Amino acid sequence: MFLRILVLILVLSCDSFRTVEADSSSFSANGFTLESVRDALTRQEDTIVFSLIERAKFPINSQTYNESYVSVLGFRTSLVGFIVRNTEAIEAKAGRYKNHEENPFLPGHLPLSVVPSYPYPEVLHPAAAFININKSIWKMYFGKLLPSITAPGDDGNYASTAASDLTCLQALSRRIHYGKFVAEVKFRESPQDYEPAIRSQDREALLKLLTSESVEEMVKKRVGKKAMVFGQDVSLDTNDNKGNYKVNPSIVSRLYGQWVIPLTKLVEVEYLLRRLD
Amino acid sequence: MFLRILVLILVLSCDSFRTVEADSSSFSANGFTLESVRDALTRQEDTIVFSLIERAKFPINSQTYNESYVSVLGFRTSLVGFIVRNTEAIEAKAGRYKNHEENPFLPGHLPLSVVPSYPYPEVLHPAAAFININKSIWKMYFGKLLPSITAPGDDGNYASTAASDLTCLQALSRRIHYGKFVAEVKFRESPQDYEPAIRSQDREALLKLLTSESVEEMVKKRVGKKAMVFGQDVSLDTNDNKGNYKVNPSIVSRLYGQWVIPLTKLVEVEYLLRRLD
Repeated sequence: MFLRILVLILVLSCDSFRTVEADSSSFSANGFTLESVRDALTRQEDTIVFSLIERAKFPINSQTYNESYVSVLGFRTSLVGFIVRNTEAIEAKAGRYKNHEENPFLPGHLPLSVVPSYPYPEVLHPAAAFININKSIWKMYFGKLLPSITAPGDDGNYASTAASDLTCLQALSRRIHYGKFVAEVKFRESPQDYEPAIRSQDREALLKLLTSESVEEMVKKRVGKKAMVFGQDVSLDTNDNKGNYKVNPSIVSRLYGQWVIPLTKLVEVEYLLRRLD
Repeated sequence: MFLRILVLILVLSCDSFRTVEADSSSFSANGFTLESVRDALTRQEDTIVFSLIERAKFPINSQTYNESYVSVLGFRTSLVGFIVRNTEAIEAKAGRYKNHEENPFLPGHLPLSVVPSYPYPEVLHPAAAFININKSIWKMYFGKLLPSITAPGDDGNYASTAASDLTCLQALSRRIHYGKFVAEVKFRESPQDYEPAIRSQDREALLKLLTSESVEEMVKKRVGKKAMVFGQDVSLDTNDNKGNYKVNPSIVSRLYGQWVIPLTKLVEVEYLLRRLD
């Protein structure tokens, strides 16, 4: 009898252990572990560097941003505003923003998706849907980044320039809002570390918990290296690039140090503050 | 008297020489010389390789190409057809196709540009406007290239996938239709070589004149190398990539050898056949 009870207890414990395992492995099967999230961020660096190199192909082309340049578009906006607004509308219809990794720049103007819904993994707390810092990204991109990666001049390719800006904006936005996933996996890994700061709504404490200076230094160095590798002129002879890169690697490192990493952490903090709602 | 006549003749010859020089230098000032055209083609290789690497980030996502997947878009089309049609319409309004370097995939459906006209350099013969081989590029891209650079699978990101396809298509189309500029500068460099074949509408002879096997071999090797350099995983340690690239370099070389170079030459031949009209 005792043996049967013992076996039953063991079976039950194994079952409950299996449930935890299954939970954890189904979480990981969705591809969201600290490692997979870091891998995604690393891969997104390539996308960001490519997009900046592609934007830098054009000069600044300031008419793209001049609100007086086109007045027949139905409303007062710059060409880049026109391209972003309309492209986001098309992509919203095509279901882009059903994936929580994507966050629109002009969420107030989006039509509904017309495609069948897709079972994206439900990983985030529902409050994630209310976190969108694209206004800050927009301001940083046009105010700080763009003037530092483009040459002066005008080649008339404003539509292509604006499309290229949108690609940069989307790549930066995806990376920065990926902070929601980073925060979620960090929280799940050690909720006991985060819960007190969340309950006391202590931003400073959360920021401290989320910061790893050594990782940040490594990321800044790596994106600089990527700007060198991807922005060199590749020829069949020796690759003597003489320090000429299509986008200055130190600007890309600085972009990460001053903007991408802090804004990602801002998203992480905003997310965690709502994580127990 | 004889001396004055001689001086006059010399002045006149110098004048006519200056005119030729001025013509040739204003042509070159527009940025279209054989060297600058080759530089543009080389730079466009980077754009093409980046775009393929970015598309290969997603699995094949075949719903993007399934005409039965979405039936509420107002007409029977795939999601990629919807994205291409609508994005081209927006970009046409924003003036993209006013630049003769750009050629739409669905030219029958484009609204007029609403932006002020820009003085793009007039380099090409007007017949250039009638050369558009995007149907062949579309067929090659979806039929041959795409299946060879993407993994099987479905991650639901069909809108982003379609936008990524359009970036690849536009990069390939720009490169291939740049053949018009290649043909124009080659013709201007030595019209006497091309005129007989143009007058007799001899495609074979034109193709032979336009072909340089050694240059083509170099280009194929170089794009393969670019796929290696841009498609590697860049880390701060040694770059031991173990032959893993985001897009197979030999596929990129083959894309150029089997499609990009032959299609560019097709554009060049089509252009030259009309060059004396």
